[in-house]
This record gives sequence, structure tokens and C-alpha cells, in this order.
Amino acid sequence: MSSPIRLSHTHGIGIVAVTIAAGILFAQPPRQARLESPIVSDDGRITFRVRAPQARSIVLNAPWAGEVEALTKNEDGVWSLTVGPVPPAIYSYTFQMDGVRILDPHNTAVKHWSGGNASLVEVPSATPLAYDLRNVPHGSLHVHYYASESGGNSRRLFVYTPPGYEENADQHYPVLYLLHGSGDNDSTWSEVGKANLILDNLIADGKAVPMLVVMPNGHPIPWSRGRRGLRSGNTEAFHDDLLGAAIPLVESLYRARTDRRQRAIAGLSMGGGQSLHCGMRSLDRFAWVGAFSAGAPDPADDPVAKDFLADAERANAELELLWIAIGRDDFLLQRNEVYTAALDSAGIVHMYKVTDGGHSWPVWRDYLAEFALLLFRD
Amino acid sequence: MSSPIRLSHTHGIGIVAVTIAAGILFAQPPRQARLESPIVSDDGRITFRVRAPQARSIVLNAPWAGEVEALTKNEDGVWSLTVGPVPPAIYSYTFQMDGVRILDPHNTAVKHWSGGNASLVEVPSATPLAYDLRNVPHGSLHVHYYASESGGNSRRLFVYTPPGYEENADQHYPVLYLLHGSGDNDSTWSEVGKANLILDNLIADGKAVPMLVVMPNGHPIPWSRGRRGLRSGNTEAFHDDLLGAAIPLVESLYRARTDRRQRAIAGLSMGGGQSLHCGMRSLDRFAWVGAFSAGAPDPADDPVAKDFLADAERANAELELLWIAIGRDDFLLQRNEVYTAALDSAGIVHMYKVTDGGHSWPVWRDYLAEFALLLFRD
Repeated sequence: MSSPIRLSHTHGIGIVAVTIAAGILFAQPPRQARLESPIVSDDGRITFRVRAPQARSIVLNAPWAGEVEALTKNEDGVWSLTVGPVPPAIYSYTFQMDGVRILDPHNTAVKHWSGGNASLVEVPSATPLAYDLRNVPHGSLHVHYYASESGGNSRRLFVYTPPGYEENADQHYPVLYLLHGSGDNDSTWSEVGKANLILDNLIADGKAVPMLVVMPNGHPIPWSRGRRGLRSGNTEAFHDDLLGAAIPLVESLYRARTDRRQRAIAGLSMGGGQSLHCGMRSLDRFAWVGAFSAGAPDPADDPVAKDFLADAERANAELELLWIAIGRDDFLLQRNEVYTAALDSAGIVHMYKVTDGGHSWPVWRDYLAEFALLLFRD
Repeated sequence: MSSPIRLSHTHGIGIVAVTIAAGILFAQPPRQARLESPIVSDDGRITFRVRAPQARSIVLNAPWAGEVEALTKNEDGVWSLTVGPVPPAIYSYTFQMDGVRILDPHNTAVKHWSGGNASLVEVPSATPLAYDLRNVPHGSLHVHYYASESGGNSRRLFVYTPPGYEENADQHYPVLYLLHGSGDNDSTWSEVGKANLILDNLIADGKAVPMLVVMPNGHPIPWSRGRRGLRSGNTEAFHDDLLGAAIPLVESLYRARTDRRQRAIAGLSMGGGQSLHCGMRSLDRFAWVGAFSAGAPDPADDPVAKDFLADAERANAELELLWIAIGRDDFLLQRNEVYTAALDSAGIVHMYKVTDGGHSWPVWRDYLAEFALLLFRD
């Protein structure tokens, strides 16, 4: 077998070095006692700690915790800070250590994002939260690769099948197409957003209709760092991939209802913009549209929006629901205000909510939990 | 809707702070130009860079790169180091910055491990590697929760179905149960090990029999930091969960062949120990057993091993394959030497390979690619 790892030619030293290194790989870092961090107290306070005797400053980056706050060092070289109390949620944070943005060295829970990862801390609740892993029947997740004009045969999407899907072999299900934001990928809604657990809980509580949830990849044109990753042509390419490849795939593999009134589309941020684009442009395919903190289109400039706004009668006849929500502290608030004002002027029926919060996952988990309740109801 | 994020009561300052913070959350860190790192050259050299003007020392933790090496700082405050050339593989690494173990601040590719995450760098090859995402038919991955005595109803496992599984609706498939190491979880073999892509490629090349691959969670007793996470009773609990719950689940959901000669079990490290335990203990269930860098049992002390070794005639009659591999630089080498010596003494037929390498993922990806070729052959 080919040798995957090249060793030092100084054989004896090499053996010792690699053996020690293998010990490092297997179990513990050298001689650094583990520190538990962060610690969440019952009243919702969070204590962050970093063992860093040589550091000169460590600052917490966590907007939800208030203003940016500095940790203070004790005589053992351990820096700490307590924040809160904060409401139960899953929060992301990083540290600035001597000017370098780092994840929490003592915490393995990580939120992946192309623009930069973050550490995660969960503040639990005595009462069940929308996304908790509860002792209820759970659905399954499925990951499929497929061929698409824009991606060879390696475009990927996730599908959530609700509890009972395998057993109810004759039952067909409505479908929610749920889109992520810029820099996320097809795994993000389940991994970070906990969409599957949110649906498990709503279904178990009888609050949501059992449905399939399809989570495609919103970057047929690969994300890149400039312009927040929103590459020209990506929205159109996504629309074509969704209708031309992803939906046919789902409908070939799963017992999905194919009537437009059994098909919903929603998304966050860039995904919200894509949902609006696809919903407005392909009214014949989607009857339920959700926009979570969306990159809403400019109604005076976007051709798809203009066409949509020009035919309110059709929109009102075809749409079961157009649901738009944005946090009052979200930098995209104004774009949503402008877009919904245009809906108002055109006489297009919709629900518009300005909520607490900003552009973050706690808000999007809540929006999904709220939006899903409304879907596929007579 | 309940308010998920509590804002500062100093409203004006709060709005500004959160808006800026939302900007941070959405796109970029404050005023820190992005640095591309690491950079891999065509000849297999890797250049690591860290922008850290205030740091006093940064050291690379990467055993595969040779001895532990220090980065050097330039006048712009950017630290760098070039290593290699190294052979094509996916490598993990961290930095020690002023004594604190950190991930690479400029690299979002992360290997999750309960004992501590690491950053990942991939050195590609001009010729296809076992785990490359190639333009071949891809199988699907499925994630299921199930009820088990040891886990409420929230034990989880992954299942890989090979390309063609959905289309060949009458075909039944052999099954490989593939186990992870201590501190990993049921997602690790696919996410880090790229097991699904390895199988896609072998199947496309006609080198492996199309098979299901089941990747269960090896910690029915949750991992904890002491004793390398290997909790007393975990192996036995895993065996019971596998046979009592996981295998029945798989066989109820998938067109799996149920004859013991169509069922294989293999794993790495702790999972290798579990594979040997389950294989030796339940010869009536598994005919193909693989141990990759295994925590092999002590043949003089482990009751299951002693029983197995005492009946070589049965072992040789029942086992199609007992395959054991370990790197010559692996700290578990001696345990494997002792175990295989006992197999030799007992006259139990097996394949034993001591390879280049140590206790690391490049080795395990190679072992899977090699072992899978041998399975389910007449």
C-alpha cells in the first residue's frame, strides 16, 4: 500500500516524534489540563473561560451579549467573563485574542459558515424549545447528489422525511423547499438550524402537517468572498437548477405531492431572496412562499418582482400564503420595508412581521417554527 | 412571537451596536482583510499564514509535517511557514499561539472530534485519490434516529446506499457495519472519512461489490474526557445496541441481505476493538471482520477473545475474512502484535498488515479503500 505519511529520515527521532505526536492525535494536547468552557448556569448566565497565561487581551465577540466585552485574567492565567442572563437559545460567538479572531479553544461545538466559523453555546430551557431533541418520533434525513447543468453530477441536497414516512407506504406528502443563506450550504438548515428537530416537534405536537422538507444548495455558482458571496447570475441559476433538476429528483425519489398547492418555498437571507424570486417567477409551481430576513428584491428594478407586482389579481388567486418576516435590528430591514410597501400598493395579500432580533440563527429557527405551522392548511 | 434576543435598554446605542454587530454576523469581521491560508502548491508544499501582529510565537502542530515547527513573522505582522512536500492526503493541524492551542483563524475546514477539533488541509493529486469527489454515480446518505435501551429514542446512525439502490428496486445488498473511534460520532466516517465517496469510487471502478454501509454511533455510554472516553461497559452496550436495535432497524428499512456471509463489520481504533468484540462474540452474525488501528483486546484477559481463540476450528469455518491493519508508528502497535500473535498460536486464519503511518485519518481512509475491495467476494 502506498505510504500516506512521510516520516523524518532521522529514524529514531522520527519514531519518537511521531509516537508522541500520535499520542497527541489520539487523546490530549501536551500537558494542558482541560478547561470546561463555556459554563451555562440555570438562570441563563454564561461564563466564558480561556486558559491563556501569555495573552494580553481577550475580548468576546457576541452581539447578543451586549456591547463587546473584555475578559479578565486571574493569577492562574485563566481569562473569564460572565454575561447574561440571556433567553434560552443557541448562540454563536468568537474571541479576539491579541487582535486575532479565534474560536473558543475549549469548546468543540462549531457553526460552519464560509465567511468564518463561530463557536456555539446553548442556553437550555426548562420548557421545551422548538429545536430541542425531544423524546418524540423523529424523521430521517437523506443526502443526495444529482446532475445539474451547473454542477456536473455533484450538486447536493438534503431531504427530511417526517416520522411515519417509511411506515405509511401509500401516503403522499406536501413539500417545503427550505433555502439557506449566503455562505451556508445544503447541510446548514439541519446542522445549524435544526430544521429536522423543529419539524419533529411540531408534528409530534400536532401543530404542523407532516411534510417533506427539501434543503438544496443555494450556490450553483460557488460562493466566493467578494460581494458577500452573492455572485451575479446565481439567483437565476438556482431557479433553473431547482425547477429543472432538484424538484424532479425529489419527485422521483419520494412520495411527494406534486400539486402546486402542496409545494412551499421559504428561505433565509439570500435564500429568502431566492424564495421570493422563485415564488414570484414560478407562481404555477409554488403556492406558499416564505421570506426570512430576506435579501428582498428592489421592486422598482427587479424584472421578476415588477412582473409579479403588475398582476395582483393573479398573485392573490394563486398564492395561499406570502409570509415575510424581518428583525427590527436587521440591516436588511429597509429592503423589506420597501418591498412590502410595494406589495401593499399593488394590493397583493401577504403577512409581514417586524420582530425582535437581527440577522441570526435564533431568529431563523423561530421563523421556521412559526411559518411551518401555517403550511398546507385548507 | 417571543423575543429570542434581549437588546440593550439604551435603545439608540443598542440599535447602532446591534446593527454593526449584525453586519459582523452577516459578512466580515471588523476591518481585518481576509488572508488566504493555507496555500497548497502543485508540488505538495503547504504554506500556512496567520495574521497576528501582536503574537509573540506561533507554532504548527502537525506531526505529519515533521517536527513541531515555528512560524516566522514578517513586517506586516503575518506569520508564515512552508512545509513539505507531503504526499496527497487530507491532513489535520492546529497552531499553538502564545501557548494557546487554536484552529487556523483563516481556514473554515474543520475536523470535529470530541477531544478537540482540528483544522484541515487537503493536498490534491493529479491522479484520482480514493476519496476524491469524482464525476461518477454517487450513492446517498441517510440519517435515522431509533429507540434503544441505552439512548431513549435518540440513538442515531448513518446509512450509505450505493448508486443504483433506488433504481434497482428488487435488488438486495450486503452490508458493511463501519465503526468510528473514541470521540467521533456517527457522522464522522462520512464527514471526515469520506466513506461514501470512497465507496462511490470503488463501485464505479468495479473494484467493490455494491453494498450498504451502516455507520452507527459507538458511544451508547456518552463519551467523556477521562480515560480517553472509553467508559467501562461501553463495548458490551454497543454490542447489544447493534444486534438488538441497529441491525433490526437497518433490515426493516433497507433491502439488506441478512445472511451472515453478507454482513461485515469493521472499525477504527475504539471501533476496531468493537468490531473484533462483535465479530468474535457473534460469529453467527458476521463473516467479515476488519480492525483498523484497533484497540485490540488482550488475548490473555478478555473473555470474548479467549473463547474465540479456544475454538479455531469454528473461527476458520465461519470467518470469510479477519483483516487487521496497524501503522508502524501507531501507539497501539504492540497490542495488535500481541493479539495477532495469539491468533497465530491458535491457528486462526487472518490477514495482518503493519503499514506506514500512525493513528490518523489518512491511514484509515486507505484501510477502508483496501478492505472494501475484499468484501463479499465468493
